[in-house]
Amino acid sequence: MKKVNVAIMGLGTVGGGTYDILTQNHGYIKSTQGLDIRVKRVLDRDREKALGRGVPQTAFTDNIDEVVADKDIDIVIETMGGVEPAKTFITKALKSGKSVVTANKELISKFWYELEPVAKENGVGLYFEASCVGGVPVIRTLTESMQANRICELYGIINGTTNYILTKMTEEGLGYETALREAQQLGYAEFNPSADVDGYDAVYKLSILSSLAFHTTIPYKNVYREGITRITADDIKSARELGYVIKLLAIGRRDGNKVEARVHPTFVPAEHPLASVRGSFNAVLLTGDYVDDIMLYGRGAGARPTGSAIVSDVIFCAKRRSHDYTDFAVSETPQAGTEIVGDFTSKYYIALTALDRAGVLASVAKILAESGVSINTILQKGNSGDHATITFLTHKAGEHAVMGALEKIGRSEYVRSIDSVIRCL
Amino acid sequence: MKKVNVAIMGLGTVGGGTYDILTQNHGYIKSTQGLDIRVKRVLDRDREKALGRGVPQTAFTDNIDEVVADKDIDIVIETMGGVEPAKTFITKALKSGKSVVTANKELISKFWYELEPVAKENGVGLYFEASCVGGVPVIRTLTESMQANRICELYGIINGTTNYILTKMTEEGLGYETALREAQQLGYAEFNPSADVDGYDAVYKLSILSSLAFHTTIPYKNVYREGITRITADDIKSARELGYVIKLLAIGRRDGNKVEARVHPTFVPAEHPLASVRGSFNAVLLTGDYVDDIMLYGRGAGARPTGSAIVSDVIFCAKRRSHDYTDFAVSETPQAGTEIVGDFTSKYYIALTALDRAGVLASVAKILAESGVSINTILQKGNSGDHATITFLTHKAGEHAVMGALEKIGRSEYVRSIDSVIRCL
Repeated sequence: MKKVNVAIMGLGTVGGGTYDILTQNHGYIKSTQGLDIRVKRVLDRDREKALGRGVPQTAFTDNIDEVVADKDIDIVIETMGGVEPAKTFITKALKSGKSVVTANKELISKFWYELEPVAKENGVGLYFEASCVGGVPVIRTLTESMQANRICELYGIINGTTNYILTKMTEEGLGYETALREAQQLGYAEFNPSADVDGYDAVYKLSILSSLAFHTTIPYKNVYREGITRITADDIKSARELGYVIKLLAIGRRDGNKVEARVHPTFVPAEHPLASVRGSFNAVLLTGDYVDDIMLYGRGAGARPTGSAIVSDVIFCAKRRSHDYTDFAVSETPQAGTEIVGDFTSKYYIALTALDRAGVLASVAKILAESGVSINTILQKGNSGDHATITFLTHKAGEHAVMGALEKIGRSEYVRSIDSVIRCL
Repeated sequence: MKKVNVAIMGLGTVGGGTYDILTQNHGYIKSTQGLDIRVKRVLDRDREKALGRGVPQTAFTDNIDEVVADKDIDIVIETMGGVEPAKTFITKALKSGKSVVTANKELISKFWYELEPVAKENGVGLYFEASCVGGVPVIRTLTESMQANRICELYGIINGTTNYILTKMTEEGLGYETALREAQQLGYAEFNPSADVDGYDAVYKLSILSSLAFHTTIPYKNVYREGITRITADDIKSARELGYVIKLLAIGRRDGNKVEARVHPTFVPAEHPLASVRGSFNAVLLTGDYVDDIMLYGRGAGARPTGSAIVSDVIFCAKRRSHDYTDFAVSETPQAGTEIVGDFTSKYYIALTALDRAGVLASVAKILAESGVSINTILQKGNSGDHATITFLTHKAGEHAVMGALEKIGRSEYVRSIDSVIRCL
């Protein structure tokens, strides 16, 4: 029976869930995996909380150096979150010859290029399945099941908070603010919800997942980001009328050396597999050149699912005598030869308010046509006084062309406002 | 750069797909995985076909002993299908110190207990991700991502042929025979479709998957099996009216030492994630005690997806210096302490034709009630002459109780026929 000693750094929600699995399923893991995994150390600032959760006095520490100096510890689990002190602590652990398992998406997406070389130099592992999409095994599927494939597309609903809010807006007709408040009351959204609703969380995850999928660095700074705060009940209604639902999608695409990586609200066709991913559930659709589509669906957050992903990394790591390292997570910037495309193509849903007068629609269409953007479906909706709301879907067009045309349209005297611009799958 | 030499035994559909990936993505796999994988030998009966597919003269052989004797070959891929000669060939390969990757569900479900000990004795690997659900990484998810979890439930649409037929019946109102013929014309169903439509294929897969999920032998002979040949257009219509779709589900459940394993047509609620799995796509929903639900969706068959699963096993195997062995796949019969439950509980959809006369429904309900089966929803449908079709859903009840009650009902003078008995999720 192989003995494995681990330390947990940070006994918050995810660290607590991890502690629970490792203690409650200890015997089960021992009998099915042949590994006797002991939590030898728990590092936290709050001794009382840790002891209250059942951590033995002898296991508790608030000093990283005690973890690092302990030769018996094989694997360090980092569940503190945020960049510092997690980065310093992980670096110390790697340098002391311990493998690290982390759930820290912000840290990995920002400093993978610093941490990976340290792991490699010291011959230890750096695992972070739990950093992306909680309990859903997206990273393991990319690295252990789709390895033979060139991956060309990745579409994900990878933030549960925004999916919960959009689902509430779609199914119950709530406005954004009401749905957000409900998510906050249920603990799905933070008091300051920006990391979720502005798309940062999804950007971190997409930067990690698309780097792994495309075997090239996609820095988080190069991921296009747009959150859901401007989505209105009218947008949701229009989407439904046109046969779509609105989702915050993370999109990665590769075509040769050209890569797209973007997070934005998206019209998803109602019959698409991702359209039926509701509430706080997450899903990722991956397309490989041989395996075609694989969709993975499950709980993208929470103590128990995320803890499950962490312990699966611990077991995976403990069974290996050597670890894999990437050849791409070594730079803060895109690799030479990889072009991260900003001027991607998409279909667009556009809503604007204009004077309710003959010829206005023709003028709008003319400006779009001059930019090479053609209209697919028009849905002119009710008018109020002398103004009308015009909504339409375009055919596929370039991002820059559409934005250029909309700038011109926005300046024209007969248009009062451009209310919505939402990309379509 | 690690060199890996493989042999492919059987250059049919899946073997051909595997050969294509290994040759066409050779450079990609080399650069991203650090493995130089060469197909050194291709074993087949048909030399001309193999050479026509691009296999070099020097690589071709029709003699297993040439493969076994070749010390350079590290991994043998078996894509012949069927029990013999695959079993003999795999055994020889394992005994000669070569790891084996196979797509052979029938062989693994029937003789895993013989092959696994041979692999273990010789310290080599036996991998079979491709045997279950084609390109969908169900086995890897069970063994490498959900290892920390006690798995309590597994629901799968794991046969593409039957799902294609049922989808056609559902979406186009086709009868079973017409949908089957269409599936045959498209190559989704064999000329003799029994292995698929009678549920044998799904039984083999469920026996493997539920054994892995529950860490105990679930022999294929102990899996309850019922195919789709008796599903009628009326059943499909009734299902829709009641808010369900009919799917051939593979169901595995564990509660302590009690295990259920069954394959049968099932009423699946229309809003359930498995209900929207259409056509030849497959999906498996796994529930663990910590991770909760994970659903995996993709192509369950075909040369390229199944080839992708095989090559992922080859890469996974090639990177390991030691291999995992189960403690349960060592017996042809269920392990002591594991009870495979035949008298499971379920809700049931029942359709019968009876005399159109007052009191008939009350008599039916009375017999059911005496057996402890209570009716949830009644949907009495049109009558023809003096007979009426009565359809209803029961509450949860025991299989034996329901079957016993139906036998009595079937014998009663006012009932002409019991037309459908379909279990509900």
